[in-house]
Amino acid sequence: MAQIIESIPNISNGRDKDVIEACVDTIRTTPGCTLLDYSSDESHNRSVITYIGDAKAVEEASVKLVKKAVELIDLNHHTGEHPRMGAVDVMPFVPIKDATQEDCIELSKVVGARIAEEAGVPVFLYEDSATRPERHNLVTIRKGQFEGMAEKVQQPEWEPDFGGRRIHPTAGVMAVGARPPLVAFNLDLDTDDVQIAKNIAKIIREKDGGFKCVKSMGFEVEDEATGKKMAQVSCNMTNFNQTPLYRVVEVVKAEAARYGVHIRKCEIVGLCPMKALTDCAEYYMQLNDFDFATQVLENNIL
Amino acid sequence: MAQIIESIPNISNGRDKDVIEACVDTIRTTPGCTLLDYSSDESHNRSVITYIGDAKAVEEASVKLVKKAVELIDLNHHTGEHPRMGAVDVMPFVPIKDATQEDCIELSKVVGARIAEEAGVPVFLYEDSATRPERHNLVTIRKGQFEGMAEKVQQPEWEPDFGGRRIHPTAGVMAVGARPPLVAFNLDLDTDDVQIAKNIAKIIREKDGGFKCVKSMGFEVEDEATGKKMAQVSCNMTNFNQTPLYRVVEVVKAEAARYGVHIRKCEIVGLCPMKALTDCAEYYMQLNDFDFATQVLENNIL
Repeated sequence: MAQIIESIPNISNGRDKDVIEACVDTIRTTPGCTLLDYSSDESHNRSVITYIGDAKAVEEASVKLVKKAVELIDLNHHTGEHPRMGAVDVMPFVPIKDATQEDCIELSKVVGARIAEEAGVPVFLYEDSATRPERHNLVTIRKGQFEGMAEKVQQPEWEPDFGGRRIHPTAGVMAVGARPPLVAFNLDLDTDDVQIAKNIAKIIREKDGGFKCVKSMGFEVEDEATGKKMAQVSCNMTNFNQTPLYRVVEVVKAEAARYGVHIRKCEIVGLCPMKALTDCAEYYMQLNDFDFATQVLENNIL
Repeated sequence: MAQIIESIPNISNGRDKDVIEACVDTIRTTPGCTLLDYSSDESHNRSVITYIGDAKAVEEASVKLVKKAVELIDLNHHTGEHPRMGAVDVMPFVPIKDATQEDCIELSKVVGARIAEEAGVPVFLYEDSATRPERHNLVTIRKGQFEGMAEKVQQPEWEPDFGGRRIHPTAGVMAVGARPPLVAFNLDLDTDDVQIAKNIAKIIREKDGGFKCVKSMGFEVEDEATGKKMAQVSCNMTNFNQTPLYRVVEVVKAEAARYGVHIRKCEIVGLCPMKALTDCAEYYMQLNDFDFATQVLENNIL
């Protein structure tokens, strides 16, 4: 029944095993913190680390991780496809259990201040922790990347939230912030006409007037088993409490019907909080009085 | 990531708070064991206690609970609506996480032997632990109740599995065994014609040729909010891995359609393992490649 907060930082090295393991070891060795997963991408030259714990354990692990990455990663010698601005590029905090958005915002401020103080890396607060609207989106903060950052932070509106206007000479700057859990969710259609997927993606995504907290694009993908091409509606559900997965399924179903097209299968990529799934079971099974917090057996154990 | 086994014993006292609390305290004070719930029914004169832990912790807690109940409950002075044969009437073990049916059968034998030895109460193994087909069903074992048990155990086919043919003078006998997790699941129809619920219950239940591991009856119930009468298909899903909840929903839907009737809402009573719900989300959302063990975030934590 302890508090659980998840962090999923990206570090700017996906090629040197020693560096990656040394960074991951800071998580492994922090009491109260559990390493869930880590994976590296060589072409992006970037690794993603996933860990959980209560606010205090995640604070300790996160600060230790940044210090180690700053010690071992030099952005002056970094190449890779993915844009980046720091040795640790971004560090989100996600409430999973007995933690609120406010808890994660508070944690991001504590960790941001400690990183500036103890590692000498200026920090931008982003997403739910952002102190200005234009800092909500990571892409906007990161524009200019490491190479342009020394100049960018001199602009009046781009002073970092912690650490002042001098970037770290080898580790740059970074973004820290609270965000809701994200679910990567793809819907494959029984057609190879990618235009249908593009049309539907446009209908459901927030940017074009669709559901709040849904990002979506239409792609052509190949079925791994059959090699058959099919159209895919690929979604990032950035807050499944705001827009649940089943609602996207039902609208995609309804819009595809216009073309005589059906959903062939759906896919959740990577980890997914239990509640994103049980919300769907509650909808489809009309479990209108179900109490997730007390009736799911595992919620009494965690 | 530790093993989790659940036990849900019924003790034959639902009226004396001191007795009930003393029994529950044996669970509270066993290291590694977590008390999830307990509730008492005065007219049945019976209490249900729910707790979890690994096999060793559940073994210790269960033996301690039986000893305390044997000390405090005298069946010679017991009245109540519910049939009973012992101070602790029945003690099931249910695999929840990193535990198999075999683990729970083994646990039931260890606990059964210790109860006979340490508390002097003869034990029948029941459900998945049963050593003879007619001992699978608790109702068959319990027939004759406490008052008839001294005589019953003298019959050749009714020698208890542990403890011999002499019942405990005040605590009788009891049943211990492994069983799958049970989900109490009700489906309310938008009709007050109870005959429709009875017809559907007959179609879906195992006894009459329906789905394996489904017990079902048709009832007339009253909507708590509106006071309106409605017909209810009430189910006990005794193994949701064998017959998942969504399959019952879909067949009830299809059979109700014959009468122009729909499902108004469904209800899960009490605790429900997460997987009973995520299986339904997987079905309705066509998540055919979803890996419950690794992709549900909470499964990496438990």
